[in-house]
Amino acid sequence: MDNPGIATILPELNALLGSRVTTSASEREHHAHGESYHRSPPPDAVCYPESTDDVVAIVKLCARHRVPLIPFGAGSSLEGHVDAVRGGISMDMRLMNKILAVNADDLDATVQAGVTRKTLNAHLRDKGLFFSVDPGADASIGGMCATRASGTTAVRYGTMRENVVSLTVVTPDGEVVRTSRRARKSAAGYNLTNLFVGSEGTLGVIVEATVRLHGIPEAVGAAVCPFPTIEATIRTVVDTIQMGIPIAKMEYLDEQTIQLVNETGGTHYAETPTLFLEFSGSEAQVAEQTASVRAIAEEHGALSWTSARDADERAKLWHARAMFHLAGKARIPNGSMMGLDVCVPISRLPECVHRAHEITRGMPFIVTMLGHVGDGNLHLGIILDPTNAEHMRLARKLNEEIVNVAIDLDGTCTGEHGIGTGKIKYMRREHGNAIGVMQKIKAALDPLGIMNPGKVLPED
Amino acid sequence: MDNPGIATILPELNALLGSRVTTSASEREHHAHGESYHRSPPPDAVCYPESTDDVVAIVKLCARHRVPLIPFGAGSSLEGHVDAVRGGISMDMRLMNKILAVNADDLDATVQAGVTRKTLNAHLRDKGLFFSVDPGADASIGGMCATRASGTTAVRYGTMRENVVSLTVVTPDGEVVRTSRRARKSAAGYNLTNLFVGSEGTLGVIVEATVRLHGIPEAVGAAVCPFPTIEATIRTVVDTIQMGIPIAKMEYLDEQTIQLVNETGGTHYAETPTLFLEFSGSEAQVAEQTASVRAIAEEHGALSWTSARDADERAKLWHARAMFHLAGKARIPNGSMMGLDVCVPISRLPECVHRAHEITRGMPFIVTMLGHVGDGNLHLGIILDPTNAEHMRLARKLNEEIVNVAIDLDGTCTGEHGIGTGKIKYMRREHGNAIGVMQKIKAALDPLGIMNPGKVLPED
Repeated sequence: MDNPGIATILPELNALLGSRVTTSASEREHHAHGESYHRSPPPDAVCYPESTDDVVAIVKLCARHRVPLIPFGAGSSLEGHVDAVRGGISMDMRLMNKILAVNADDLDATVQAGVTRKTLNAHLRDKGLFFSVDPGADASIGGMCATRASGTTAVRYGTMRENVVSLTVVTPDGEVVRTSRRARKSAAGYNLTNLFVGSEGTLGVIVEATVRLHGIPEAVGAAVCPFPTIEATIRTVVDTIQMGIPIAKMEYLDEQTIQLVNETGGTHYAETPTLFLEFSGSEAQVAEQTASVRAIAEEHGALSWTSARDADERAKLWHARAMFHLAGKARIPNGSMMGLDVCVPISRLPECVHRAHEITRGMPFIVTMLGHVGDGNLHLGIILDPTNAEHMRLARKLNEEIVNVAIDLDGTCTGEHGIGTGKIKYMRREHGNAIGVMQKIKAALDPLGIMNPGKVLPED
Repeated sequence: MDNPGIATILPELNALLGSRVTTSASEREHHAHGESYHRSPPPDAVCYPESTDDVVAIVKLCARHRVPLIPFGAGSSLEGHVDAVRGGISMDMRLMNKILAVNADDLDATVQAGVTRKTLNAHLRDKGLFFSVDPGADASIGGMCATRASGTTAVRYGTMRENVVSLTVVTPDGEVVRTSRRARKSAAGYNLTNLFVGSEGTLGVIVEATVRLHGIPEAVGAAVCPFPTIEATIRTVVDTIQMGIPIAKMEYLDEQTIQLVNETGGTHYAETPTLFLEFSGSEAQVAEQTASVRAIAEEHGALSWTSARDADERAKLWHARAMFHLAGKARIPNGSMMGLDVCVPISRLPECVHRAHEITRGMPFIVTMLGHVGDGNLHLGIILDPTNAEHMRLARKLNEEIVNVAIDLDGTCTGEHGIGTGKIKYMRREHGNAIGVMQKIKAALDPLGIMNPGKVLPED
């Protein structure tokens, strides 16, 4: 407890929240990090607001006593976003879990920040609607806003950037601000919504979000399509997008990933660069999209085309895609996966993949490559024993090298995982003097620096 | 010339730009306002940078001498965005008109700010690509970024919010900043791109933009579909969007507008609430979309359905839609149109239209209503003689009332025209204390207040 404010703030938090604030070691440890491989000491305390009023009161207390405040969603972030690197209070949003409104005609819903995406989708199902953004984990909507999440469906429906209509935010001085009204578009002033989306809790606390919904498509189809080379794979992706085909998912898996998918799912896919594809729309649209993409793929030398129209078959396919790392982890003691994340202009993907192959050659662990290639987003999954210090050192070095490759190719150090603590060191290389503009905004909105300090921005 | 800095800055600008700075009355008058009905004195001088270096030098001079600087694109803005309300230098970007790169595989293009959208599209045509955002006027790309423009195609392809990948901006202290790299998505830090999109020149000067492109669709179809009521019209819109039909355009025209369209285009459409629709994609997609929307429309009581598959027919239809105001203006001496612009959640459109009808009843001028209804965007076109002070007073009052209606319905005072000087007075009502956050950002990035002062934000 280095921060002298902590001793003062705890009784005040207690008076405010009663049993909803705790310093128990297990709770603090649970809130010490998300799913990242970074490690830092736990927060000094954990609190659970039930309302926006609670959040305002907590923020004001933290401001008065200069105590860091770290919003915590589902704890599924990957880059140390929720780590209490300077101690302070972890504010777990899980009790703010109300779905406040579903406006079916407007295709939007307003939820409290702690609602998870699966909870929202379960609630929407019988309305024929769904919330599209799917980062894999059952993240909270507030956390997804804060990290600008995306995932497999972004190629069709966009990322959180495109799917947040409005946010209610508690600012670092304890004001409740709504970033936008509920109209689908507006030209009225600065776009605060998209400033807070991706700000990772450093500019304020997201307490409510209005998100876009989409109609559940009538029909869905999927296909698996292996290629002889990464170039042929990417040409297929580029032509598909250029033709305006509204493909639902377009996932690249490299040889190594396919091998693990086969092990996980009991399948026998060829171990070669492969696209897992999904099509959705009306029956006729799915048929037409499937035929169009198949024709493009064959033109670029696709080795085969296996359709999966049946829902069970599709579920198996995507499950094997999502769970492939299990087969990898099972191969070694203490097996764990470190997920890397870069994004480049699509045309630069082949070079990015080739250079990634060069960098990873000879590494003493399994490296998988896969990605949401319709967006140019490439993930490397390093399967290793995190207690092996030398392997961790090599993995971190590999991460650094692949990030530098992506930035060289006019890409970004993170397509969707965010900066947290893990990627701050790349921010200057990526953004140059635009960091100065970001720092001015941070200083203007959070002059005391209480909101999730040590995240996103370099401080010098 | 109230600003004492002007006398000092003029010789310095002259040394820098030679004949590319002028104080001629005609040039100043030409830059005194865009196409708005607001009036203010002309700028003290007009300058024409040819390069980013020129812009940096001009910004630094203005900062040193505390002289207001007003970026000027094509002069097509409607709310006084380019008015020199506090004097200063109008910076016309027209000489910065280079198309710097077209990355066909990545579906993006990088242009200097002065390139107009029609110039860009002419350049792209033989590549099978187009830039989708179409506000009507042949606006500059820089101006479209600055005002967060949209128009008829936003329902399919999004507004400038969704179509700008990255900007190069000269900040108020003369730094050249790139807001993002060229990857289609990124989770790396604050979204500066979307902060500058819509900032109307108040946070810096946009000198380059990388925008998204789309493949020119293989086939296009259009249809005209009249309804008995506005409710039936909107139900058709809502169902179409909820079904995920990627409709290309979905334009509402009220009875009065249809009457003027008929006069302009020599057509005989029924004078009743009507949708003008456009479909695009493959031949099969156009056929399927047309059949789907027609079925929805008929379910909601559409009075008829007239297809226009032929390119000439379609061109005539959209030309009459764009030019309907000519027939209105021709009816009165000095005829002019004041365009109002609000946007509400789609479900609130019928109420918005009904209340607009109530407000306009008995007005001594023609009021048309039309809108990009797929986005909830409603325009009123008031056709009047601007020299008639009483009519202007009533029109301004009507504007105020319709804006208040939109805000009451959880909408915005502007869907796409922007704030400029004309709508500052509604900003507090719309945004509440979020104005404080915007003001802090403005003060942090432009502490001297030189960038387009008197626009967007209330200052008290």
